[in-house]
Amino acid sequence: MKTEKKMNLSMLCDFYELTMGNGYFRNGYKDRITYFDTFFRSVPDKGGFAISAGLDQVIDYIQNLHFDEEDIAYLRGRGIFSEEFLEYLKDFRFTGDIYAIPDGTPIFPREPVITVRAKAIEAQLIETFILLSFNHQSLIATKANRICRAANGRAVMEFGSRRAQGVGGAVDGAKAAYIGGCMGTACTLTDEMYGVPAVGTMAHSWVQMFDSEYEAFKTYCELYPTSATLLVDTYNTLKSGVPNAIRAFNEVLKPLGITKCGIRLDSGDIAYLSRKARQMLDEAGWTECTITASNSLDERLITDLLQEGACLNSFGVGERLITAKSDPTFGGVYKLVAVEDEDGEIKPKIKISENVAKITIPHFKKVYRFYGRDTGKAIADYITLHDETVDDSENLVIFDPNATWKRKEVYNFEARELQVPIFINGELVYKQPTLQETRAYCAQQVDTLWDEVKRFDNPHSYYVDLSEKLWDVQQKLLHQNS
Amino acid sequence: MKTEKKMNLSMLCDFYELTMGNGYFRNGYKDRITYFDTFFRSVPDKGGFAISAGLDQVIDYIQNLHFDEEDIAYLRGRGIFSEEFLEYLKDFRFTGDIYAIPDGTPIFPREPVITVRAKAIEAQLIETFILLSFNHQSLIATKANRICRAANGRAVMEFGSRRAQGVGGAVDGAKAAYIGGCMGTACTLTDEMYGVPAVGTMAHSWVQMFDSEYEAFKTYCELYPTSATLLVDTYNTLKSGVPNAIRAFNEVLKPLGITKCGIRLDSGDIAYLSRKARQMLDEAGWTECTITASNSLDERLITDLLQEGACLNSFGVGERLITAKSDPTFGGVYKLVAVEDEDGEIKPKIKISENVAKITIPHFKKVYRFYGRDTGKAIADYITLHDETVDDSENLVIFDPNATWKRKEVYNFEARELQVPIFINGELVYKQPTLQETRAYCAQQVDTLWDEVKRFDNPHSYYVDLSEKLWDVQQKLLHQNS
Repeated sequence: MKTEKKMNLSMLCDFYELTMGNGYFRNGYKDRITYFDTFFRSVPDKGGFAISAGLDQVIDYIQNLHFDEEDIAYLRGRGIFSEEFLEYLKDFRFTGDIYAIPDGTPIFPREPVITVRAKAIEAQLIETFILLSFNHQSLIATKANRICRAANGRAVMEFGSRRAQGVGGAVDGAKAAYIGGCMGTACTLTDEMYGVPAVGTMAHSWVQMFDSEYEAFKTYCELYPTSATLLVDTYNTLKSGVPNAIRAFNEVLKPLGITKCGIRLDSGDIAYLSRKARQMLDEAGWTECTITASNSLDERLITDLLQEGACLNSFGVGERLITAKSDPTFGGVYKLVAVEDEDGEIKPKIKISENVAKITIPHFKKVYRFYGRDTGKAIADYITLHDETVDDSENLVIFDPNATWKRKEVYNFEARELQVPIFINGELVYKQPTLQETRAYCAQQVDTLWDEVKRFDNPHSYYVDLSEKLWDVQQKLLHQNS
Repeated sequence: MKTEKKMNLSMLCDFYELTMGNGYFRNGYKDRITYFDTFFRSVPDKGGFAISAGLDQVIDYIQNLHFDEEDIAYLRGRGIFSEEFLEYLKDFRFTGDIYAIPDGTPIFPREPVITVRAKAIEAQLIETFILLSFNHQSLIATKANRICRAANGRAVMEFGSRRAQGVGGAVDGAKAAYIGGCMGTACTLTDEMYGVPAVGTMAHSWVQMFDSEYEAFKTYCELYPTSATLLVDTYNTLKSGVPNAIRAFNEVLKPLGITKCGIRLDSGDIAYLSRKARQMLDEAGWTECTITASNSLDERLITDLLQEGACLNSFGVGERLITAKSDPTFGGVYKLVAVEDEDGEIKPKIKISENVAKITIPHFKKVYRFYGRDTGKAIADYITLHDETVDDSENLVIFDPNATWKRKEVYNFEARELQVPIFINGELVYKQPTLQETRAYCAQQVDTLWDEVKRFDNPHSYYVDLSEKLWDVQQKLLHQNS
């Protein structure tokens, strides 16, 4: 076992990536150039779109890719890898190309998000980590975006570390939640590492630690007069919590001229309690006191609370965000779409399946997004062969790849290529935005989607169409292989 | 931001733990001895019991607890912590006591699993990580145990890294799955770090990489003749996959005298395909060829497949295990149950709630499990005050704390204390079992449960009762505070 349990994420790969890698090596396929697409098949929660994320971690991972002595020794101990392969792994690094849609972009099923062009072993070994990162981060960014849209401009704070699925679930999950629109997190480490503002109120234990609730509140206000948010439900929210909070605000904050403060409701009927608390606070002159709600919230509950007229300024969202509880997996897959023969010619590859949805789109491709020049809104995505270009000065007829008689003419549009080069020949060529820039870009791109695509129930299916040339390639391979 | 993004898990705490810690420090409460219980309120998937796990990570965490210069600098930059508190954090370590139920033990709602007795700041700062570890690991161990019980003796392999919620979700999740009963994992790093056997077959990309499916299979058998499991659904399972597999077995394995091999089914109607494949393999003389199923399996699907007469020897279970998809949060909480006054007297504390289920069981406690001396089966758990002892040489009347007229006399039983000392005065006093021992202990302890507690639908509610003395303490506090 590894000493000190120090993690080398290069070893975070399915064991079969290594046995296949060893096979390609021994079989003379190691330098064969392959193309793999990372894409997903359906949006979690039956939503209309997802938010791509996880590329930042993929970049770190690719740059640190290596196998150290301990890793090699472990692999040797398994007794199935050739010494030549183990020797090859000692100097292993990624030398291929990666193209990807930037983090924070709305994405749709079937379109290639991360495309890898690399030697067979290299492309194979990085599969697990690319998928893990893309799936986890996109899952949480997508869920956070739903929750923030439900909050309709009110602040959403990520409070789920304690219920997260492991350390990365908490720390990197909070980062993805920030991309999706959350304004902060409870997780201190995520702030320290990534600059996501760490925020918090108090726990019930603080209130219980003192001889009385009032004393607990008063002490807290004295300690943090400019950021006092008091948890008012330890004993009885309306009979004790809110009156004690008002008393503490009056005695500590008022003499200091402070008018901004807050309370948090964490149990009971939040809609009712928030209205009553609002009334009590207002009558006591604390009109600027905010009310935060927590307790198993998600986009559905927040929508309901606001419809019931709850008086809430912000939300602390825990387990249902950090685990994407209502639909906790993002089904990204990584599929071989082409190989190059010795002359450098790209041969498309397909995976057939008895489940039609599992049939892949072959070949090295490009993805365009068409925006209306008049509205600025996204009209359709359009997948082409890698060497096609779209002339957006002319009208274009696109068609549904699953029902080719469904045709639509797009006009007055601007075509933008979604994937950008990230690594070329193993070198990072992408200038990474800051996390704050990614968050702002995400909000701006979500604004380009029509409301029909954004609604929670039965959203409009956004068009993701294939060029005629690409469709022909797919049909040809389908007929050859069936 | 932290240089090189190096993680110090001591900073993986909710920000409010630090603001409260600073408050306790400035308020003279820092050395006040507190008692916190970690417990959960309901079993995921409405099951009859959970499997405790995560203690191993808590031990590592407590032993490494510290704040380094960078952490202190980050906290200072937040501008709300006193210099005295920051100075105190520089030498911070855990000096308290921790009692816990060992990993792998069946556990039930409301009983204290991990109990911390420590100075207020220490006990507060470790809350988030204890909960994160306990919640995540118990969630996955519990889910894995359900899936393994459904497989009814057949091997279950954890294949979910690519859909896990982050790095810890994959690596530590696979460890928890092993405790719960899985025989191996796809995750190479979990094998390297923890010795959980890493296993695997092949991906569709292997099959696609070759000019024909047959060539892909033949090459694989030549490379790994003693462990060849061939993925037969890339093109057409019964028309192409299984016949090509048989041909490869015949041409490569038969001359070597090898009779053990395998195929994997990853799509389509697994029940039907497995019966047909079994028939084809048997007719070709490959009766020892195993059939593995994968593709979105969980305990429900496995139960159904076996009921339909599927011919399956093992299961590769991915996203539905590694994220516990059907119920992906484990609701463990960490609640203050007592404080010591200056004379060392323990004062019980309670948290009232308008949700009755959220009312806590106060005081420093013990948990006993009663086993029938005749059957070896677990009869009930019994929570007492810390200084009570149970005399299991005499009959005992226990009662339901929520319906005190429900009484039951237990006799001919052996009482075993569930919690054991882990840290005393900050020193590790627990001899940690190996992961293999924990896994074996888990299987043995699950065997002590009656089938009624283990069934998936409407399981019997196992008795978790309070001693009369403890019940009196709770009632007294309830009446004082309401």
